[in-house]
Amino acid sequence: MYAIWLEENKLQIRTDLSVPQINDGEALIRVRLAGICATDLEMIKGYYPFCGVLGHEFVGEVVEAKNATELIGKRVVGEINAACGHCRNCLSGFPTHCENRTVLGINNRNGVFAEYCTLPTENLHEVSDEVADEYAVFTEPLAAAVEILEQVHICPTQRVLIIGAGRLGLLIAQTLALSGCDLSVIARHQKQIDILNSFRIPVTSQEELDVLHHKIDVVIEASGTSEGFQLASNLVCPRGTIVIKSTFKGDTKINVSQLVVNEITMVGSRCGPFEPALRLLTKHQVDPVRLIDRRYPLTDGIAALEYASQPGILKVLLDIQ
Amino acid sequence: MYAIWLEENKLQIRTDLSVPQINDGEALIRVRLAGICATDLEMIKGYYPFCGVLGHEFVGEVVEAKNATELIGKRVVGEINAACGHCRNCLSGFPTHCENRTVLGINNRNGVFAEYCTLPTENLHEVSDEVADEYAVFTEPLAAAVEILEQVHICPTQRVLIIGAGRLGLLIAQTLALSGCDLSVIARHQKQIDILNSFRIPVTSQEELDVLHHKIDVVIEASGTSEGFQLASNLVCPRGTIVIKSTFKGDTKINVSQLVVNEITMVGSRCGPFEPALRLLTKHQVDPVRLIDRRYPLTDGIAALEYASQPGILKVLLDIQ
Repeated sequence: MYAIWLEENKLQIRTDLSVPQINDGEALIRVRLAGICATDLEMIKGYYPFCGVLGHEFVGEVVEAKNATELIGKRVVGEINAACGHCRNCLSGFPTHCENRTVLGINNRNGVFAEYCTLPTENLHEVSDEVADEYAVFTEPLAAAVEILEQVHICPTQRVLIIGAGRLGLLIAQTLALSGCDLSVIARHQKQIDILNSFRIPVTSQEELDVLHHKIDVVIEASGTSEGFQLASNLVCPRGTIVIKSTFKGDTKINVSQLVVNEITMVGSRCGPFEPALRLLTKHQVDPVRLIDRRYPLTDGIAALEYASQPGILKVLLDIQ
Repeated sequence: MYAIWLEENKLQIRTDLSVPQINDGEALIRVRLAGICATDLEMIKGYYPFCGVLGHEFVGEVVEAKNATELIGKRVVGEINAACGHCRNCLSGFPTHCENRTVLGINNRNGVFAEYCTLPTENLHEVSDEVADEYAVFTEPLAAAVEILEQVHICPTQRVLIIGAGRLGLLIAQTLALSGCDLSVIARHQKQIDILNSFRIPVTSQEELDVLHHKIDVVIEASGTSEGFQLASNLVCPRGTIVIKSTFKGDTKINVSQLVVNEITMVGSRCGPFEPALRLLTKHQVDPVRLIDRRYPLTDGIAALEYASQPGILKVLLDIQ
């Protein structure tokens, strides 16, 4: 089958891979549409060592499923962490933190920039006919946005600021806006500002920032930069919360005393729950399609990844079939 | 009056200061006994610029109180943050984060290593006769330990580890042990280990540490070092919490991605509530007196601070009268 392969920080097209075999409890999925995410781009830069098919955002169709034949022919999205079910973290109710997990296109499991992928059937969520592919493909990153609400109680009266209006930042903005909180976003590119304007979500200017120091109840760092984190520390109010939503390579210098004196809570936030994300998509409570920048066929996948890595580019999709 | 004065990182004895005048709403307090805290020692090293009388842990007797004559003659302890009552943080119920606060012996208000100090009467808490001076003087640091329970829900079934068994670490250990949680402490000095043994609080050895990576639900960093913080990041379990309890100068390098991937919550924690601390002291549910290392008269205050700054030294008290 056709696939985009990452090995030692280099991408290549491979056509020599067989359609994968499934194990007990797994499904074989024909990928229909896949999305490129910042994590994919970080992995190409060496954020995490991985050798295999890249990609983890997808919508596809089940073509084979051991012990779950009722899934065959169904259109599905899939949670990316394949858990063991018996380690301490699985038993604590946190399978996304499974000690023995494989992660689709990230850790020890081939990803979705290919004609086929496999996942445990328990990871799959059926997509209703109301949700078209170009919506469903956003389920995984939207779930990551919803994860913030799973971890932090954001009150409708609170002032909330998102640093970064990239692919993930714009999904977070739409999701948090639903709470009725006093939300604004720091955006760098005109395209991002236009989208936020269309959603009627306020954009914070540099001048406004200067008077917001230590005034924001909840700051979401979604820029993936050390500078973003430093800015978050300066903006968050005493007893406030910083949610860190992006991964990047290397260490960040943090003034720990400032966090102690102001009694700041910092919350690392990663993968989220799919069902609420699908509910939001089904009811059109978020509009991810505005975020689509370009679509490429899988055969142009390397060009697509190169395009996606440029500053200010939003969601790039890969049409697989 | 006699006082220990800090100016440009240098200590001096001053005898030329007048007994302070009180403003409306304030009380004049004759200090009876004061405690030396790590923050005092950090301030001498330049952690925070301050010129004035050092010290903030005390028990004393009210000798004058405008508009609150019922306080005169009462033995009291005092919260160290003097708040304005009308800023955003005061109105949000967080007067310890008042934007206009002065802080006893730390920020714009002379401290307690002197014969007299002043505080707003609303900061004062009367000490019952059951609580002797050498217990009451621990109210402020014990409140800082209690603050952890105010900020973080520590479950009796959770595994909790405290990094550092200094003055504050040992108070935190006694406080958290009351929750019934599975508590252990990393201690460096034999004196600390002996005290923990006497409290029947387990001490974690280096060998045990090696198997505890990513296994601890709540890690309290009370060592005041970058290394302690790094160790906390390695020990905390996915979805776990790191409470940062100590202030120190400079930046700390943090692997933010590790916090995101494991969805760690970090909580900065500072001053705490006095009433619960006084309840614990009154009922002898914590025993701070075991932590007293030496007592000096105020006239030997500089020697006392020098002694307290040595590694492994526990609480040093200053007898004022």
